[in-house]
Amino acid sequence: MTSSPDRRSSGMPTVTMIGGGQLARMTHQSAIALGQCLRVLAGSADEPAAQVSANVVLGSHDDLDALRAAAEGAVALTFDHEGVPLAHLEALEAEGVAVRPPSKALHFAQDKLAMRTKLSELGLPVPDFVDLSGEVGAARSALIAFGESHDWQVVLKAVRGGYDGRGVWLTDNRDEALRVFDDTSSGDTVLMAEQKVAMVRELSAMVARSPYGQGAAWPVVETVQRNGQCAVVLAPAPGLDADVAQQAQQMSLTLAEELGAVGAMAMELFETTDGELVVNELAMRPHNSGHWTMDGAVTSQFEQHLRAVLDYPLGDTAARADVVVMANILGAPEAPQMSMDERLHHLFARMPEAKVHLYGKGERPDRKIGHVNVVGRPGEGVDDVRERAERAAQWMSAAVWTDGWDPHAG
Amino acid sequence: MTSSPDRRSSGMPTVTMIGGGQLARMTHQSAIALGQCLRVLAGSADEPAAQVSANVVLGSHDDLDALRAAAEGAVALTFDHEGVPLAHLEALEAEGVAVRPPSKALHFAQDKLAMRTKLSELGLPVPDFVDLSGEVGAARSALIAFGESHDWQVVLKAVRGGYDGRGVWLTDNRDEALRVFDDTSSGDTVLMAEQKVAMVRELSAMVARSPYGQGAAWPVVETVQRNGQCAVVLAPAPGLDADVAQQAQQMSLTLAEELGAVGAMAMELFETTDGELVVNELAMRPHNSGHWTMDGAVTSQFEQHLRAVLDYPLGDTAARADVVVMANILGAPEAPQMSMDERLHHLFARMPEAKVHLYGKGERPDRKIGHVNVVGRPGEGVDDVRERAERAAQWMSAAVWTDGWDPHAG
Repeated sequence: MTSSPDRRSSGMPTVTMIGGGQLARMTHQSAIALGQCLRVLAGSADEPAAQVSANVVLGSHDDLDALRAAAEGAVALTFDHEGVPLAHLEALEAEGVAVRPPSKALHFAQDKLAMRTKLSELGLPVPDFVDLSGEVGAARSALIAFGESHDWQVVLKAVRGGYDGRGVWLTDNRDEALRVFDDTSSGDTVLMAEQKVAMVRELSAMVARSPYGQGAAWPVVETVQRNGQCAVVLAPAPGLDADVAQQAQQMSLTLAEELGAVGAMAMELFETTDGELVVNELAMRPHNSGHWTMDGAVTSQFEQHLRAVLDYPLGDTAARADVVVMANILGAPEAPQMSMDERLHHLFARMPEAKVHLYGKGERPDRKIGHVNVVGRPGEGVDDVRERAERAAQWMSAAVWTDGWDPHAG
Repeated sequence: MTSSPDRRSSGMPTVTMIGGGQLARMTHQSAIALGQCLRVLAGSADEPAAQVSANVVLGSHDDLDALRAAAEGAVALTFDHEGVPLAHLEALEAEGVAVRPPSKALHFAQDKLAMRTKLSELGLPVPDFVDLSGEVGAARSALIAFGESHDWQVVLKAVRGGYDGRGVWLTDNRDEALRVFDDTSSGDTVLMAEQKVAMVRELSAMVARSPYGQGAAWPVVETVQRNGQCAVVLAPAPGLDADVAQQAQQMSLTLAEELGAVGAMAMELFETTDGELVVNELAMRPHNSGHWTMDGAVTSQFEQHLRAVLDYPLGDTAARADVVVMANILGAPEAPQMSMDERLHHLFARMPEAKVHLYGKGERPDRKIGHVNVVGRPGEGVDDVRERAERAAQWMSAAVWTDGWDPHAG
């Protein structure tokens, strides 16, 4: 565990982010504008944020001493992932570290069962669910009873540690559900089951909350998932009823307040076939569904997250355009012959308006290695903007133009 | 001279910027989005860019070995100031370093006399000027002849090294002009003199040019000077005739092409009382008159500068709004009692839409320590947007609200 020197000279505060991934990398960009340098606890010097920040502590987020070293002298400790053991955070809080979001709130983002239970208590709409965390035989019986009463339209979820589709199993018959249960519960994985919701689409209601209690909500967006992970975000969610959008924002703000969340928070929702909202997941950090804000909102989620953890007043969350679309750049099944640098060159030649954000990550299949934002021009429809954003992202992923364009053709 | 390790892992290029000031700091923000980490040659670790970049080489821009170390392995070498000795750059070019802008172009940004002479040759409008670089007696006679023929409305300028009002003396009588000449020419300073132009206002026509030869122009802006340095920028220049704006853009693009400039380039202009344009100064780098682009244009000058020096295709230069105003945050005559951090807190409370960019610099009178961009909302006039931007910047400078607002009053 080593630490680079703290070079700040303007008397502005230092925030530490645990995790050196792309969220920390992009938070560092915003920290620079605020007169700061983000301190990052990273596992290695080649992680996305460690590549670019002058203030890196190398160490593991599982190691309390590394966490302590990273927190030393910082005014707040925050996170680019939900993987830090809660006991460590409680220990740091007992030592006076400003952990933001605090452990009591982060608990609900780490534990899907606790989150579901809390949401139910608060009267927020959740799918039916059942706790399968108990003794195996009893849990198996509970799953069978739950499955029978829901026609075996069942989603099994790991209570902890899942992300980007990992730790989630969609099943639609008894044998499949029990096989997942039997395979999974033999290990350490604690499960819960939920009713599969008949939905039209997925939404995300992102907000931020400061310790002072100020809340701010960005426009509600539609998230398009592929292979269990976010692929595209449409801001705002096209055609969403204004009352429903406001309801989603209000639910997210209420939950942030009730949980005592601090920082950016994403509430992922299902819009059901009968026009209702159901809460799916929760993330207490900058989130993929908020990347569009970097170019499309007055205040980006990364600046807002910093403002919130520093207890600064929050920034304007208004969109800068009628339509903004974000498309993730994913590692292709096979790495293209053309280098990333060359692909970027071609993209810029074809789309001078595309805003590209690369994470400095090696390419592996389906790995999130960057994203593209396209901000719609006045009068442009969401379909056009989306087509351009997806075309750009696909090009950066696989060096293939989805519209079949060939610059060398007649 | 020490160097931190090069931590990039995604195969993207490394650009080196000579100079660790705010321009390098903000270029680093853009480098991050492009999958890079800007390498910075800085005089000390507490310079604005050195505070935030993971790739810092410590050393002097006057030291050829330091320049060589900074260039090692980088695909291009560029600048956040004009102070690098031309002979060093020629040496690096001879060794195969891609110096961008190249020394043959940068020469004109370093030497006001060469620039004036070249502009004249190209037929671009410049004020009358006279070379005072020769033997002192002859130069003094030349100044007298020039002064007499221009009614002693004369600006004396150091041919090299002036910036932010330093190295420029406005005079309006013979005695004053000769006193400046006698005081100055006794040292190493080489002088020239220009006719003082009867002007309405100052403009800036910023462009970028790539080695491939692509050029791109941002909207022409009005720059408001105070005490010889840029205080406020209005984008676009209010009420500027469209033909005149286009003429300014064309002049700047033409000059960039003729000089073989690479990267961002600012052409500062006077709009004369009879509606003509006259070229004042030239900067071959990101420039204060382009800071508005960070929040107000599709492509910021910092991203564009990197795209140009990398020979990527250039980005869309369109404004994101009808009115954008930038106001510099200057160190106050006396440092306010309230800390920068606390001032920022209050500013955000009052203006959630203000985009603040702080440079990590200590506060000294009139020193540029940050800037504020305010992007106008649809329908907002330039006066309103300007008032807010200046109010925000003044608050950040001196902890005084220029509208007399008192949060504790009644």
